[in-house]
Amino acid sequence: MESKEIKEISQAVVSRLPRYYRYLGELKDEGVERISSQDLSRIMKVTASQIRQDFNNFGGFGQQGYGYNVELLYNEIAKILGLHSKHHLVLIGAGNLGQALANYVNFERRGFIIKGIFDQKEELVGREIRGIKVRRMEELESFIRENDIDIAVLTIPKTGAVAVADRLVRSGINAIWNFAHVDLNVPEGVQVENVHLSESLMKLSYNLNRYNLEKEL
Amino acid sequence: MESKEIKEISQAVVSRLPRYYRYLGELKDEGVERISSQDLSRIMKVTASQIRQDFNNFGGFGQQGYGYNVELLYNEIAKILGLHSKHHLVLIGAGNLGQALANYVNFERRGFIIKGIFDQKEELVGREIRGIKVRRMEELESFIRENDIDIAVLTIPKTGAVAVADRLVRSGINAIWNFAHVDLNVPEGVQVENVHLSESLMKLSYNLNRYNLEKEL
Repeated sequence: MESKEIKEISQAVVSRLPRYYRYLGELKDEGVERISSQDLSRIMKVTASQIRQDFNNFGGFGQQGYGYNVELLYNEIAKILGLHSKHHLVLIGAGNLGQALANYVNFERRGFIIKGIFDQKEELVGREIRGIKVRRMEELESFIRENDIDIAVLTIPKTGAVAVADRLVRSGINAIWNFAHVDLNVPEGVQVENVHLSESLMKLSYNLNRYNLEKEL
Repeated sequence: MESKEIKEISQAVVSRLPRYYRYLGELKDEGVERISSQDLSRIMKVTASQIRQDFNNFGGFGQQGYGYNVELLYNEIAKILGLHSKHHLVLIGAGNLGQALANYVNFERRGFIIKGIFDQKEELVGREIRGIKVRRMEELESFIRENDIDIAVLTIPKTGAVAVADRLVRSGINAIWNFAHVDLNVPEGVQVENVHLSESLMKLSYNLNRYNLEKEL
């Protein structure tokens, strides 16, 4: 399997995998054992040919006329997504958004475990969020080293984000989930996934605006 | 200008517009009046030809050898993104994430004004978040009608989201910013922008996993 997993896969396909994973998880929970690409296509509103093409990136998973084994497919996609092993996270920025993420138990269920929370605000230090203590920024590097951290979540304002990202990279962090509204400048090999909420809202605003303009014509 | 604005534009281009808007806003704040596509390319780490192509979708904005007028371009993109007029929002779900969004003042600065917050939890009703009262779900339809709401933000668990989206659509809402981890089934013309946080985290996990596998080879 290893050689299949590291085949070059477009980010477009990667972006669709979590959605397949979600639907297969729901089917599994409902006790469905097999599903055809046609039925999956109908539920997911993606063409059956798209589904077959996507799964072919990982070696297929299906037998002609027989459908996909739901649990097998679910487990394989989990493995491809790196969900077969646990991840240790630090969260930097214990403001509203940081607290919301720290309180979201579903991440932990998927194996993403927040080990430490950091904030530069002295009044937040020492507080606990879902049993996790908020620590001083000074402790960041030693904490990362001592707790086998592989993912950092950045929920701080854009002004401090670039400098903190530099510290994370120097501490050996290879994956940053970035909510700060700035593009991070990281060396090759460091993975950054941006969640820019205001950009998402603007995209919605664009589509609404465009629809309204069309209606007026 | 109207006819230019409603030209068919791919969602890939639309996705890049908020980022252009952000960089142009920063340049404007720094007092930069003109910028060449080459300089913008260097700052934004996008090719100059990509920039020219993207801007051509909206009629160009530039003169050969003269560069772009930063403020003009900034204002035009704002208009295209629908930021020239105010939007009235309702937020449904006053949990951690809902509170984080309601507390985020930058949305309001961009013209996205949360008018009402709703939650089905009786203990939250009556509380205020940044001066906005949390209301009962029963009031949703009348509030939307009476307050000229055009965007709804869904920060509730997936179980209730589909039913609430139906209510929103029946109340005339045409744009839903959906944080619930479920695909909404809405009629054509209703715009949905999904923010599926766990899918974003899985994508990061995939890229980290893939990078680690490659290193091992």
